[in-house]
Amino acid sequence: MSHPHPELGPPPALPKDGLRIVALGGLGEIGRNMAVFEFDGRLLIVDCGVLFPDPEQPGVDLILPDFDYIRDRLDDVVACVLTHAHEDHIGAVPYLLRERPDIPLVGSRLTLGLVESKLAEHRMKPVRVEVAEGQRDRFGPFDLEFFAVNHSIPDALAVAIRTPAGLVLHTGDFKMDQLPMDGRLTDLAGFARLGAEGVDLLMSDSTNAEVPGFVTFERDIAPVIDEVFRAASKRIIVACFASHVHRVQQVLDAAEAHGRKVAFIGRSMVRNMGVARDLGYLRVPAGLLVDSREIEEWPPEEVVLICTGSQGEPMAALSRMANRDHPIRVTEGDTVLLASSLVPGNETAVNKVINGLTRWGAKVVHKGNALVHVSGHAAAGELLYVLNLTRPSNFMPIHGEWRHMRAHAKLAALTGVPEENIVIAEDGVVVDLVDGRARITGAVPCGYVYVDGTSVGDVTDVALKDRRILGDEGFVSIVIAIDSTTGKLLGGPEIHARGSGIAVEAFDEIIPQIEQALEEAAANAVTDSQQIRRVVKRTVGRWVNETFRRRPMIIPVVIEV
Amino acid sequence: MSHPHPELGPPPALPKDGLRIVALGGLGEIGRNMAVFEFDGRLLIVDCGVLFPDPEQPGVDLILPDFDYIRDRLDDVVACVLTHAHEDHIGAVPYLLRERPDIPLVGSRLTLGLVESKLAEHRMKPVRVEVAEGQRDRFGPFDLEFFAVNHSIPDALAVAIRTPAGLVLHTGDFKMDQLPMDGRLTDLAGFARLGAEGVDLLMSDSTNAEVPGFVTFERDIAPVIDEVFRAASKRIIVACFASHVHRVQQVLDAAEAHGRKVAFIGRSMVRNMGVARDLGYLRVPAGLLVDSREIEEWPPEEVVLICTGSQGEPMAALSRMANRDHPIRVTEGDTVLLASSLVPGNETAVNKVINGLTRWGAKVVHKGNALVHVSGHAAAGELLYVLNLTRPSNFMPIHGEWRHMRAHAKLAALTGVPEENIVIAEDGVVVDLVDGRARITGAVPCGYVYVDGTSVGDVTDVALKDRRILGDEGFVSIVIAIDSTTGKLLGGPEIHARGSGIAVEAFDEIIPQIEQALEEAAANAVTDSQQIRRVVKRTVGRWVNETFRRRPMIIPVVIEV
Repeated sequence: MSHPHPELGPPPALPKDGLRIVALGGLGEIGRNMAVFEFDGRLLIVDCGVLFPDPEQPGVDLILPDFDYIRDRLDDVVACVLTHAHEDHIGAVPYLLRERPDIPLVGSRLTLGLVESKLAEHRMKPVRVEVAEGQRDRFGPFDLEFFAVNHSIPDALAVAIRTPAGLVLHTGDFKMDQLPMDGRLTDLAGFARLGAEGVDLLMSDSTNAEVPGFVTFERDIAPVIDEVFRAASKRIIVACFASHVHRVQQVLDAAEAHGRKVAFIGRSMVRNMGVARDLGYLRVPAGLLVDSREIEEWPPEEVVLICTGSQGEPMAALSRMANRDHPIRVTEGDTVLLASSLVPGNETAVNKVINGLTRWGAKVVHKGNALVHVSGHAAAGELLYVLNLTRPSNFMPIHGEWRHMRAHAKLAALTGVPEENIVIAEDGVVVDLVDGRARITGAVPCGYVYVDGTSVGDVTDVALKDRRILGDEGFVSIVIAIDSTTGKLLGGPEIHARGSGIAVEAFDEIIPQIEQALEEAAANAVTDSQQIRRVVKRTVGRWVNETFRRRPMIIPVVIEV
Repeated sequence: MSHPHPELGPPPALPKDGLRIVALGGLGEIGRNMAVFEFDGRLLIVDCGVLFPDPEQPGVDLILPDFDYIRDRLDDVVACVLTHAHEDHIGAVPYLLRERPDIPLVGSRLTLGLVESKLAEHRMKPVRVEVAEGQRDRFGPFDLEFFAVNHSIPDALAVAIRTPAGLVLHTGDFKMDQLPMDGRLTDLAGFARLGAEGVDLLMSDSTNAEVPGFVTFERDIAPVIDEVFRAASKRIIVACFASHVHRVQQVLDAAEAHGRKVAFIGRSMVRNMGVARDLGYLRVPAGLLVDSREIEEWPPEEVVLICTGSQGEPMAALSRMANRDHPIRVTEGDTVLLASSLVPGNETAVNKVINGLTRWGAKVVHKGNALVHVSGHAAAGELLYVLNLTRPSNFMPIHGEWRHMRAHAKLAALTGVPEENIVIAEDGVVVDLVDGRARITGAVPCGYVYVDGTSVGDVTDVALKDRRILGDEGFVSIVIAIDSTTGKLLGGPEIHARGSGIAVEAFDEIIPQIEQALEEAAANAVTDSQQIRRVVKRTVGRWVNETFRRRPMIIPVVIEV
């Protein structure tokens, strides 16, 4: 097994018959999945998702793949295949289309439906190429064949990519529910056929590679939901992902069985379920839905609210209910069902929501105390099936952090993939498939691109470092006005501090010291404002550190008059 | 069951024969445990711990209980009982003793030993009253009896508090390992005797009240550790809590059995294990320990490092190893054992450490993939034993968040405690035990007290709000110098922005607008610097929000010359 080394440089030219693969996201992280395939000068993109920020990236809304690698070659892009409509696979599409609006988006009916409704909010209308499992289409030199896979959103696809360099199978995200809600199984027969043909490289979802065994079936949640409904004497509030059509279907079915009305709450929930219903993926019994604004008119024991906020997002309905900052007031006897995963990083936020709801007397049912969620990603047992059926010559774990990719690589080795043909690559690492062997040949720059408000990429790592310092320590700013020719102090020092936790009066102590330092500087003929700034910064910084053991950002401002 | 309402006001005077209980921490949160008992004008404190900050409290080192409630009555305090030496029970002792240095600290031998070594770092020497299980002592009107309890640190105690108001049993933190490493069982016979005598109020540890069943025994980890040692071909690095003497003992035993030398790494680990060894709680075979500075001289397969950092603390040894920022370089084949819990809130940090170590090729064994940790807190099954043996007239769940306290209250009700005698109180809520009934009678102010650097309490919630804004959005400061009499612009506007993610050049656009706004203000005879500041703030704030959809802190500074 090989893995990247810091010394990796730019890759050599790609041989004529070689296929180059560069992931711009999704390798070494969970999110912003995007892989770029290159053959004979043409590019194929598979997925274009976002990553959600962690506490090290304060104030950031989204993180995009770095498009720099393809920016000068956008015209060479023949298509962007979207395996399914989760945000970590489609969220960056609006930003990609800003760079070239007519890149054809290739995906299943539901995937394109959800992407289109998202793009409509960005006032964009994409070029769409609808495909379905079993279909085979050519985009430039890339001969694509699509396979049904089962996931936590309907209509997901895997894609086989044939070029003269060989056959690559990219699974997208998948699991292998053998009794899926919609009867649409992951196409193991298709994978077996590819295996017989000869898979040169398998790229497979690693998210759950550390989890032994098999994922419980989605339908096994049904009796638990039923029991929750049976036991509930008042209002039922269900929070789940706004794209989990099958989970919502199960709640609708339970509501129908128990004679409760349903209201959707939350913009993305309303939007996505509208699309899913219109396209026939969600069955909504007549008369079941009511408008969320009318929900208070129904007796509590006759309603179900289905809302967003299952990850503790502070602005979503559920968090606001927990804080009594929402028109719907949770009270003693209400039941809240968190029918969702707990995405790593959101533990603290979700715990706060559970405590808040519990405090008001709600019974909270969640994956920690009942079987109300199953994962959308194949566990180790299922991953082994795919490895054994496709019998790939080369293997590359995708979609996972290091721990997941290493675990998946180990599974591949156990099934007989030679260790030297297992490639663990990070984002930006160049993998070339040449003469039937996949090898790391270099790396390209591939940083985080931050979206904050309306701007893309303006927030840099330097700005984030500033934010971390400001957020932990606050700042102290010292403003003085000097005569621009003599350097003589005309006004100030005036001190402004925010978030420093240093009491205003404490600064009285340092002002004479600053004045004295400025006098000494003047005596030494220091008139340059840059130097004066340095004197002020040193004086104040030293005092703050010695007196308070803190390191706020010290900002000296010298204004010349 | 009753729980506090926002309208709770100050409590009435305490009846002569009543016992008042006010928790200044630990109720509605995991941490800063501290309960104050009052009888006949005298006060008894049980525990005095710290809480560790969450992301909503950026830059804060520690959070203390609010001593305001007792500040004017420190002379009435007869003793501070420390049930065991975990930080969330003893961490605030140095700050309490700053207020009155001669408050007697009452605790077991190991507890006082660890507290003393901690206080020595603060250059304090406490008044100590060593007690042991089975002992009964009087402190003012409080007749205390101590009981052995088993926990994740040796020598923990529960305390029965007898006053004319009744008998209260405070369990401290405990579990009921029936085959404990040191043979020291939780004293159920003692609890049964109290039950026969009549427990008027049980205050019991709620941390694991949501967890069904029983906690696995500490000794069941031994074979897993042994297997890790057997399989390890290179260095073994074990991270665990610096106070978990029994866990460290198990690692020392395994090291001895497998012929490896041991080095302790991390200040608190070295200090605590020194105390535990000196007092006879840790058995260290002769010749086993080596100095951490010499560890590189031994072949990798002959050493074990025991270090801090199991919670992903960024400055601890383990995080630094994961980032290759430590003299000890983790490499392919090393084994890292995280023999610890994953404290809620630390998931992201620990995940980063696991990924970092995995990236360098280490095999990481943790509670997610092996039985290398057991909890220190009784699960529901064990809690039921205590409830059934003590048969309390009144019950008050302690040490937990709302979800845990509610779950524990439910267990109490199942064992027959009348619902109206179950009191769920938050920090600061006043519970009076009068005529054999525990009732909420009011609430006292009880905020967070933040420690940051050398200062205690200077960092306020306002400063933290500033930090959150600064950390998420950065700031934009606009400095101008004006003539103090005419209000005429003499210098500037000069713009400084940090963390805003707005490019420096972008500000060129706003400067003319500021100048224009100032001119208009001057035309309207606005010369007051306060008003001028407002004009500048509004102009810039509106521009930033409309142009960038951001809300950095806008700081106008007007300096008069």
